[in-house]
Amino acid sequence: MTGRSPTEAEVLGYVESLSNWGRWGPEDQLGTLNLITPAVRRKAASLVRHGATVSLARELAPVAEPGDAFAPPQRYMLFTGEGLADEHRVRQHPAGRESDSARVHGASEYIGMVFHGFNVTHVDALSHVFWDRRMYNGKPPELVNSLFGASSHAVTAAGDGIVTRGVLLDVAAARGVEWLEPGTGVTPVDLELAESRQGVQVREGDAVLLRTGHGLSRARLGPQDPNVHGQPGWHPAALPWLHERGAALIGCDAGVDVLPCDYPALSMPVHVIGIVTMGLWLVDNLDLEAAASTAERMRRWEFLFTLAPLRLTGGTGSPANPLAVF
Amino acid sequence: MTGRSPTEAEVLGYVESLSNWGRWGPEDQLGTLNLITPAVRRKAASLVRHGATVSLARELAPVAEPGDAFAPPQRYMLFTGEGLADEHRVRQHPAGRESDSARVHGASEYIGMVFHGFNVTHVDALSHVFWDRRMYNGKPPELVNSLFGASSHAVTAAGDGIVTRGVLLDVAAARGVEWLEPGTGVTPVDLELAESRQGVQVREGDAVLLRTGHGLSRARLGPQDPNVHGQPGWHPAALPWLHERGAALIGCDAGVDVLPCDYPALSMPVHVIGIVTMGLWLVDNLDLEAAASTAERMRRWEFLFTLAPLRLTGGTGSPANPLAVF
Amino acid sequence: MTGRSPTEAEVLGYVESLSNWGRWGPEDQLGTLNLITPAVRRKAASLVRHGATVSLARELAPVAEPGDAFAPPQRYMLFTGEGLADEHRVRQHPAGRESDSARVHGASEYIGMVFHGFNVTHVDALSHVFWDRRMYNGKPPELVNSLFGASSHAVTAAGDGIVTRGVLLDVAAARGVEWLEPGTGVTPVDLELAESRQGVQVREGDAVLLRTGHGLSRARLGPQDPNVHGQPGWHPAALPWLHERGAALIGCDAGVDVLPCDYPALSMPVHVIGIVTMGLWLVDNLDLEAAASTAERMRRWEFLFTLAPLRLTGGTGSPANPLAVF
Amino acid sequence: MTGRSPTEAEVLGYVESLSNWGRWGPEDQLGTLNLITPAVRRKAASLVRHGATVSLARELAPVAEPGDAFAPPQRYMLFTGEGLADEHRVRQHPAGRESDSARVHGASEYIGMVFHGFNVTHVDALSHVFWDRRMYNGKPPELVNSLFGASSHAVTAAGDGIVTRGVLLDVAAARGVEWLEPGTGVTPVDLELAESRQGVQVREGDAVLLRTGHGLSRARLGPQDPNVHGQPGWHPAALPWLHERGAALIGCDAGVDVLPCDYPALSMPVHVIGIVTMGLWLVDNLDLEAAASTAERMRRWEFLFTLAPLRLTGGTGSPANPLAVF
Repeated sequence: MTGRSPTEAEVLGYVESLSNWGRWGPEDQLGTLNLITPAVRRKAASLVRHGATVSLARELAPVAEPGDAFAPPQRYMLFTGEGLADEHRVRQHPAGRESDSARVHGASEYIGMVFHGFNVTHVDALSHVFWDRRMYNGKPPELVNSLFGASSHAVTAAGDGIVTRGVLLDVAAARGVEWLEPGTGVTPVDLELAESRQGVQVREGDAVLLRTGHGLSRARLGPQDPNVHGQPGWHPAALPWLHERGAALIGCDAGVDVLPCDYPALSMPVHVIGIVTMGLWLVDNLDLEAAASTAERMRRWEFLFTLAPLRLTGGTGSPANPLAVF
Repeated sequence: MTGRSPTEAEVLGYVESLSNWGRWGPEDQLGTLNLITPAVRRKAASLVRHGATVSLARELAPVAEPGDAFAPPQRYMLFTGEGLADEHRVRQHPAGRESDSARVHGASEYIGMVFHGFNVTHVDALSHVFWDRRMYNGKPPELVNSLFGASSHAVTAAGDGIVTRGVLLDVAAARGVEWLEPGTGVTPVDLELAESRQGVQVREGDAVLLRTGHGLSRARLGPQDPNVHGQPGWHPAALPWLHERGAALIGCDAGVDVLPCDYPALSMPVHVIGIVTMGLWLVDNLDLEAAASTAERMRRWEFLFTLAPLRLTGGTGSPANPLAVF
Repeated sequence: MTGRSPTEAEVLGYVESLSNWGRWGPEDQLGTLNLITPAVRRKAASLVRHGATVSLARELAPVAEPGDAFAPPQRYMLFTGEGLADEHRVRQHPAGRESDSARVHGASEYIGMVFHGFNVTHVDALSHVFWDRRMYNGKPPELVNSLFGASSHAVTAAGDGIVTRGVLLDVAAARGVEWLEPGTGVTPVDLELAESRQGVQVREGDAVLLRTGHGLSRARLGPQDPNVHGQPGWHPAALPWLHERGAALIGCDAGVDVLPCDYPALSMPVHVIGIVTMGLWLVDNLDLEAAASTAERMRRWEFLFTLAPLRLTGGTGSPANPLAVF
Repeated sequence: MTGRSPTEAEVLGYVESLSNWGRWGPEDQLGTLNLITPAVRRKAASLVRHGATVSLARELAPVAEPGDAFAPPQRYMLFTGEGLADEHRVRQHPAGRESDSARVHGASEYIGMVFHGFNVTHVDALSHVFWDRRMYNGKPPELVNSLFGASSHAVTAAGDGIVTRGVLLDVAAARGVEWLEPGTGVTPVDLELAESRQGVQVREGDAVLLRTGHGLSRARLGPQDPNVHGQPGWHPAALPWLHERGAALIGCDAGVDVLPCDYPALSMPVHVIGIVTMGLWLVDNLDLEAAASTAERMRRWEFLFTLAPLRLTGGTGSPANPLAVF
């Protein structure tokens, strides 16, 4: 895109032009993950040349942050290592029962969270978004209900994990800035600039990870509410490019969609058209700082990418710790 | 072990003889994960010959099961695809705010769980168990407290993921049974029998995954409370063997420790000596049925193993979906 | 009712004949609580002759029980009195911050529950049940949605508390049995038998509390799943009687509706017709054993009744500890 | 107090001079609630002259507020009235199972909260605070542990409810201000000024409710974090006065203790000396605006006070909706 942004009508046109409905059969729940073939995985594994692993996830701390739409993640200790010498101490077995030995104790906790939102690193299943009262592949949204969660298009569709080539496109570096300002949407011009700088080409089956430098700005300025202050992200104009290249998954160090968004009818167009139209799997809220440093040092922006969603029955996504193995 | 089980005194002796305290420095929090070098990872990646991925985790459903020491996993939908045509319907944006478009809706949920216990597939961090009022490497247990969780030895120590060679030892198959009965402890004799049948040798840095057939018995008979009915598992007599071979991580399709346990002073000796003495990382409650079938079909029981714990600040472990990539 | 039970068609007829829709205006959310006038409350207060208070609630323990439709109540301690002498102990202030004094510590917890169901003593707001896609007073059910909870007919309608005369009708004692067997539905014959034995008459504005002896059978036999084993309770044939007498609230030591129920179209007819048609407030799962003993001892089955629901914004009910003051 | 505040040494002296340890026996868990005799309750009931009930609690909404030390209250709908016409709608029974009737649906929710803190109206049990490693009556703090919660001094000690005379002391009105500024501690001079203006005298067994006008300032200025901005409240200098008068319970429309506090060794001295030394029951975060208006209108600041804590097994307190019945 050298010049103008697509009009809202043009973006709405993607609902037809980028559609993958029916492409992999009427019952398909995998969407673009179908593009990750065994051959793609074999090639991806061959990228492990150094043997270094780098997490692409933020830490998941039980603290409130700006932009939380819901309660912050929670952690409540069930038992701890405190007071083991106390006279009235209950001997707590690691498995949660009373220990039969005075010498053995354990620690355990309850964790809880709403992983969707702007803070937790997570993957969206294809049941996360509805457009015109349809899910990906035309399924009715009532299949996602209070009692069963997502009885179709759950995250368990990807239960065997997402293992493919990861390509980190460092658009902040390509543009020569520390980070893209909130409201900056990344378009094919940026992506190809980064490809060119890095000597890498996105191809079919890739996990395409966009570095906007948001992790650095969060570290420097503190987290800010994207609904108030905006965030950088994928511009919907990148969707045809991703469709053509055959991306299997996209991620971003902010919340995927650029905010504020110029297309009110679509609200969060990359989520809407990506998930519903294309069946594209999205990963929100990555931390790409460590991976970008490693890539820069090794002069190599491709690696083995793994993401193993929790096998949450009926889940509309999952918190995740995606890895890059260089 | 051809003959007798070790006495309790002998097992207690492992606390000295198998100790890794200080081996990787006084501040080490990685324990046996230190054995996974870049070279080990490179070799592991080279095992991806077919490109098939198989989950090693059970599904994580919000239902009560026998053996739950605490509340079952929880899932509460925050908004769903129900009633999108209702007159009073709130347009719910995927990011958790009200949508500015009548055509866009989303679904989201709260999830919560106590992952330790007998049902959720999870990894134990080295802060999960205390022996004689010490954690691995001699640290005081009060470092694990209610306010901060594990302020040392948290699961975040493995935040960059565990990527290594996985070896599935199918002891049920080696013994020619569908599954090992509860109370059956697996010893080096069994392990070497399985190695021999499978033509594979456990070596330094491996993730060693014990198949007892428990997944099959759970499917056939339904889940049962291991505190009442027992479970098969690793016998503490296997610990010196694991130490000698240099296992980096062990897992089991039941809860790792054989139950009931003959060593009351130790309560769950593989947890106690494994975690506290050896700094060994344990994965409880795997589902190895699919991986065993794949391995049998391919006649290959080694693969690329990945486990990416959630980066839970202060966590004493994490729910997980470990993968085998063949 | 001396003879036959009403037919399903007759019970369905109550939807018309017992309707309070519009009786207190088109926007009314109080239903039968309108019958509790200041004069009724003054009279109720005059019943305090001894000054004894008795709880009418079960204990609320964080344990699983048969009949739980959802996760059991939860309690997770945030900090405790354990290990106050530990070297690494964090000084925990009662208000949840670090204490500035080494001599001050506190204890606190998270509590969570699904109060509706068969175990927790709770009051149902008029937003709890829908019949033919309508709430009490004809309001549309979509007013109860995931984002806001009950945006009409919430429990906060009764936020200033329910203070009135309580009448305990001990039907088990009237029938001369320890408890009514599951499946036994209490009809006007029973109610008038109890009135007669006790020398009391239900009148307008009363809280009518039915003792079936279920508390005793729970204590004796342990709790049982009412969906499997049934429960005693109010028979729908009692509804016209309650309507005529002007009961403001009814309660029961089991879950209000007799189970199994002979009226499949209505599923739980006392809940459906009581709440939706009559605007009657229900209290499920009382413990009436202590109150019945006190009443028997004092030969007085009327008292000051108080129930103060938590002021849960959007709540469809509330856990409660109703009191009898004799 | 006309003049100087007590020194820290003087306040520390209250630990001896105001002690109720042993006063009601070595096993007492009721503390000052012992002062509420049946005669006190009878007299309190006789104060119901009009028959009006007024809640003394704030609304309990699932939203974050400044001063939350922990996650805000949570409400997750389990099923709702949305989409009852949807083709795939699950018929949800009020009791949490699938309904056997297409005409019956229900709504239900999960609620969760940390009630201690600065926002939820709640009562503190005598297990909530420790001083010099002792609870009220000298019990060891380890009796409050992670596994059992408060195994002594739990809120269930008051399970039969607190029913007594309530006296609202409107110190803001007595001082002729809209509200007391944060940091303003209320002393006997203020209390007696209010008594005198209102023509009422605190006497043995009373629930003494201090109105600082904090509810009005919250409404006007929005909630503020008391740890940052302070709050008005009871000055520790009022403790001897409360002891002498025989208050059974005290409450406040802010968080009881004035903040900031001038006595660092005691941190929150009214909590510490009130709860631990005196066995005094505290109610934090009341909303006294409606009650004050009613009292002003009726020219009567005494009423029947009821508080029925949830019977939380092991609870260190309870959320509550205390009532004033005029």
